[in-house]
Amino acid sequence: MVLQSCMKTVKASWLFALTQRKKLRYVGAALIGTGVLVYESSRHKAEMAKAKIDISDFMAAPITDIATLEKNKNDMKSKMELMIMKIQADFCHALEQQEVGGAKFVVDRWERKEGGGGITCVLQDGEVLEKAGVNISVVSGVLPAAAVAQMRARGKNFKEGQMMPFFAAGVSSVIHPRNPMVPTIHFNYRYFEVQDSETTTQWWFGGGTDLTPYYLNVEDAKHFHRELQKACDKHDKSYYRRFKKWCDDYFHITHRGERRGVGGIFFDDLDSPSQEKAFQFVTSCAQAVLPSYIPLVQQHKNDGYGYAERQWQLLRRGRYVEFNLIYDRGTKFGLYTPGARYESILMSLPLTARWEYMHVPVPSSKEGELVEVLKNPRDWLGIGEAATAAA
Amino acid sequence: MVLQSCMKTVKASWLFALTQRKKLRYVGAALIGTGVLVYESSRHKAEMAKAKIDISDFMAAPITDIATLEKNKNDMKSKMELMIMKIQADFCHALEQQEVGGAKFVVDRWERKEGGGGITCVLQDGEVLEKAGVNISVVSGVLPAAAVAQMRARGKNFKEGQMMPFFAAGVSSVIHPRNPMVPTIHFNYRYFEVQDSETTTQWWFGGGTDLTPYYLNVEDAKHFHRELQKACDKHDKSYYRRFKKWCDDYFHITHRGERRGVGGIFFDDLDSPSQEKAFQFVTSCAQAVLPSYIPLVQQHKNDGYGYAERQWQLLRRGRYVEFNLIYDRGTKFGLYTPGARYESILMSLPLTARWEYMHVPVPSSKEGELVEVLKNPRDWLGIGEAATAAA
Repeated sequence: MVLQSCMKTVKASWLFALTQRKKLRYVGAALIGTGVLVYESSRHKAEMAKAKIDISDFMAAPITDIATLEKNKNDMKSKMELMIMKIQADFCHALEQQEVGGAKFVVDRWERKEGGGGITCVLQDGEVLEKAGVNISVVSGVLPAAAVAQMRARGKNFKEGQMMPFFAAGVSSVIHPRNPMVPTIHFNYRYFEVQDSETTTQWWFGGGTDLTPYYLNVEDAKHFHRELQKACDKHDKSYYRRFKKWCDDYFHITHRGERRGVGGIFFDDLDSPSQEKAFQFVTSCAQAVLPSYIPLVQQHKNDGYGYAERQWQLLRRGRYVEFNLIYDRGTKFGLYTPGARYESILMSLPLTARWEYMHVPVPSSKEGELVEVLKNPRDWLGIGEAATAAA
Repeated sequence: MVLQSCMKTVKASWLFALTQRKKLRYVGAALIGTGVLVYESSRHKAEMAKAKIDISDFMAAPITDIATLEKNKNDMKSKMELMIMKIQADFCHALEQQEVGGAKFVVDRWERKEGGGGITCVLQDGEVLEKAGVNISVVSGVLPAAAVAQMRARGKNFKEGQMMPFFAAGVSSVIHPRNPMVPTIHFNYRYFEVQDSETTTQWWFGGGTDLTPYYLNVEDAKHFHRELQKACDKHDKSYYRRFKKWCDDYFHITHRGERRGVGGIFFDDLDSPSQEKAFQFVTSCAQAVLPSYIPLVQQHKNDGYGYAERQWQLLRRGRYVEFNLIYDRGTKFGLYTPGARYESILMSLPLTARWEYMHVPVPSSKEGELVEVLKNPRDWLGIGEAATAAA
């Protein structure tokens, strides 16, 4: 019996991408409703030819048409869309360079009938990357009631039950490498605009980058945090301290009393000091993903490991699934939204995960050492008390 | 590197159980706080000697001491505790008989500092059962605010923020067999008492049994539903029809538009026609687990299968995890309760699960045939329109 699937289109695209990559920079498949349309490469080429904005490196054509992006090039909506497209492309290309066997990302360009769409890039079952997803979405419409309630609960000054037009653009990514000595990374940077009256629009940025190792490597954790700190310090010396603690508090598997990983930075509702300055900060954070993470992949992708390390990695991936499905605000919110593209939301889940009853490593083992750090977040860069969250 | 864990105590108990099973009917480990105490077998023997109630077959001594159970033998709390203890023992023993290699359940008897406790029986990595959990719990205390809110939302006439003493006793089980031709079963039967004023107590029963096959076998599904229908029909001819639809509606992976499996029965807040009659009905349902399921294990545990069938089983187990962590009321409620024994709650998760991006089987395949039934629940016993839930 042979399993077949709508991956067929995608697999064909992937083979095509492998052989044609030099001639054609991307292959896209747009999902509209339940039908799958292979996105026409000719349109991308035509767009490229006439564009003043350079989109030649992008994984697919932007969601907003080039003419509109050109016309509104100083509008934050356009700036954010182009920034996340570039981050997606740079990260995908850097990861592909780590793949010894030449595996490439499969690109799905999809549209949303309520407005906007996204580009989901997935590399599955590579030699280095077991499952890697890098997604951008640029969507607009009227905010669902559940979203308004969630934003109000977070302190947004919106009237209950109000119909508000919104725009959201973001990039999000989760990389699950095959080798247990290479950590998993997650990042997400997003921009929101909500029109809360005829004349006023509220805007804010949110995001973060965090690392989930399977074995603790203190130098790796320090390197990772140092790169994030550098990105923060360029903009506000208080950011790293605040956003490092916020990250430890957010990525908390409450029922286990463990963090998901060794942290990073996390923030939401950032609307100061100005729209442009906040954008510059978010851009710096997104640009810090490569230097914070790629060296760790490079350094550890050929490390030796055995059956026990693989089993431990799978157990930790089970914990990752627990966090994402039980606590993560974005995942829950996404899945409860009617018509959400759940495949893009759930691309964050690992290819394989494992749950053993009552598995607790002995404290003196390598596995126990990791759990100790997950229970008691560390101040990696020696910035003092405020860096460690209350357990 | 060798992974060690607090399973050490348990593994030792398990070996002991294997060799001593004929002399001693159980081995228990009580978890109090973070310390693990091996429950003394001598107490169980002593309890057995003086007991008029026969507990010799139970997996461990009941949570409530025998003298109290004897004294209050007509109280529903005692009757329910003894019923679920017997169901747990019968099901564990029947499953152990299916294990060709002689694998036995590990028994954890745990206590809860707020009142009561439970007995968690787990068989992991057997030849026939990949992961099997059969749990009973008998707990009392003051209802947490979140529980009151959830019950109010469901229609219970409780005042908000009221401090109410409660008692709850239930049995719950999930069996994940190794062979993809053997379905997964889940069942849960529970009794609640809430004292909502100085003089009044509300009580109700809830529960259900449902089947999750990896490959559709129509005869198996019919057999399973027929046994449940028989149990229902003894008490009320309208029950099967109503509770079959409730089951299809409840076990719904909303974001995928799929049911978790081929259904069964599900009900909650049952407080009629009388306490005794409702108890008799719930007892019949719990007793129907064995004849509905064990023949399916017996019949298919040696069926042939290959790599593709195993991969499909793992993908479907990923969907099982999605339902349990995102939608299941019991799991969510349990995990959000401070001090909950999360290992007993999460024993329902499979040993291994898998997530592939955009996996959809072709409709004409065996896998596609299953998905079709998950999207459009069937009226297995030909009882007419009302049996199928709206998609």
